[in-house]
Amino acid sequence: MAIIIDGKLTATKYNNALKDSINEMVQKGNRQPKLVVIQIGSNEASSLYIRNKKRACENVGILFEHKVFEESVSESNLLDEINKLNNDESVDGFLVQLPLPKNIDEDKIINAISPSKDADGFCPITLGNVVLNKSKIFPGTPKGIIRLLDEYKIDVTGKKVVVVGRSNIVGKPISIMLTNLSATVTVCHSKTVDLKSETCKADILIVAIGSAKFIKEDFVKDGAIIIDVGTNKVDGKFCGDVDFESVKEKVSAITPVPGGVGPMTVNSLLENVFTLYKEKVGN
Amino acid sequence: MAIIIDGKLTATKYNNALKDSINEMVQKGNRQPKLVVIQIGSNEASSLYIRNKKRACENVGILFEHKVFEESVSESNLLDEINKLNNDESVDGFLVQLPLPKNIDEDKIINAISPSKDADGFCPITLGNVVLNKSKIFPGTPKGIIRLLDEYKIDVTGKKVVVVGRSNIVGKPISIMLTNLSATVTVCHSKTVDLKSETCKADILIVAIGSAKFIKEDFVKDGAIIIDVGTNKVDGKFCGDVDFESVKEKVSAITPVPGGVGPMTVNSLLENVFTLYKEKVGN
Repeated sequence: MAIIIDGKLTATKYNNALKDSINEMVQKGNRQPKLVVIQIGSNEASSLYIRNKKRACENVGILFEHKVFEESVSESNLLDEINKLNNDESVDGFLVQLPLPKNIDEDKIINAISPSKDADGFCPITLGNVVLNKSKIFPGTPKGIIRLLDEYKIDVTGKKVVVVGRSNIVGKPISIMLTNLSATVTVCHSKTVDLKSETCKADILIVAIGSAKFIKEDFVKDGAIIIDVGTNKVDGKFCGDVDFESVKEKVSAITPVPGGVGPMTVNSLLENVFTLYKEKVGN
Repeated sequence: MAIIIDGKLTATKYNNALKDSINEMVQKGNRQPKLVVIQIGSNEASSLYIRNKKRACENVGILFEHKVFEESVSESNLLDEINKLNNDESVDGFLVQLPLPKNIDEDKIINAISPSKDADGFCPITLGNVVLNKSKIFPGTPKGIIRLLDEYKIDVTGKKVVVVGRSNIVGKPISIMLTNLSATVTVCHSKTVDLKSETCKADILIVAIGSAKFIKEDFVKDGAIIIDVGTNKVDGKFCGDVDFESVKEKVSAITPVPGGVGPMTVNSLLENVFTLYKEKVGN
């Protein structure tokens, strides 16, 4: 039976450590860190995610402000708000909850966020610095995956990693970050000709495609480590992109869904905010 | 016998097309495009590269200015100069010839270049936009490789590409760009455990490690396509990272050194300048 890589427990551990660090900074006379989340419209999933972020912030001592705009808000009003937040010294980081309504140009909005306030780590300049191995902040899910691997003492140096999925927020950044950490990384996607032959060679298989239970036993190598980024709802229950029951006897370690990568993504957001905060208030 | 992928011929073809496009713009009453190259000190190789860039610019009708600073120039003087160029409307692109003397912080210098003047495509924001598949300019060598493949009608979709080397200017960006073009890409490097087993699976093998004739016949698959980015000098003669004589009977196509990727890199620089120019003067 595989080791279950417990993201919930790991996130709690690091959230608690972060809480202590923040508390220490405040004891020294510094202000609390602050995150602002901008929501446009009232997408139900977005509202749920934002509530989770709010709870997580409050739990560790990060001030949280939720700014809601009507779906009909103009792009220029939104850009004005972003500009204000870029220049507001009491705000350490902010993010615009995606997806955006169709009348708003997502690129324009993300590009307007100052890299010194980029809580999500989605800005081009942040990503570029990730490529150059010089960033202090990172997209949340990749950062969370690397922390999980680290927590379970899984050294990636020289390991064969296969990433399935090439999204801008998971697949591409995690492949770059693991290359920088000296893994040998292959990125697969919908156009990969023989996916199974690729995934079967992976020491570490990372799956982020958003397709319920897509990866079965015959896609994995004996003893592989599986990181399942998917969160899909099937018959009212959450499941990952990996068929957990099918692969669990074959692999050496696996993240469950829920309770695997998900909680780590939120922890990464908090860590990014704290990193941006320290850049401002000093150590 | 393999097809020899002729970078010199291809670069000449695209340089000529660019010359026509520039000429057309000038006929319409627009000014000529302009590139500025900053050199610090008198590194011999740098001086040679700059002479090549100058000749290439003049050949296609791009104005060229070479600014030379003493090795002892201060970082702040250099940053002032960059700031001036960022704001000089007569300059479409500029670059700082690397490597820099040790007293100058390369990151600081590169970060100061406005993305709207980034002729080399090395700025973090440019690289980030390359990751996001939204950039109009690209690092020269990766851009040149993709144009070469395209010129020889080598469709990369679904192809298994292995990149050997993970540099910021070749290995990492080409792997991202080819992932965006739907190849299945693996990046190998000095920490890869079984390099040969990786390279032997490549439909397209790209080598950029700076080690003369490192890749021999037993590293390549029958019929593979080889892109050799290396430029090494052995016994007074240039050679690549691939042992051309050893692999040429086994592969289906290969770039020679010299005359392969090298001329394409210079063409990419000119194309970047023209792209930045068009952003400024309009079409």
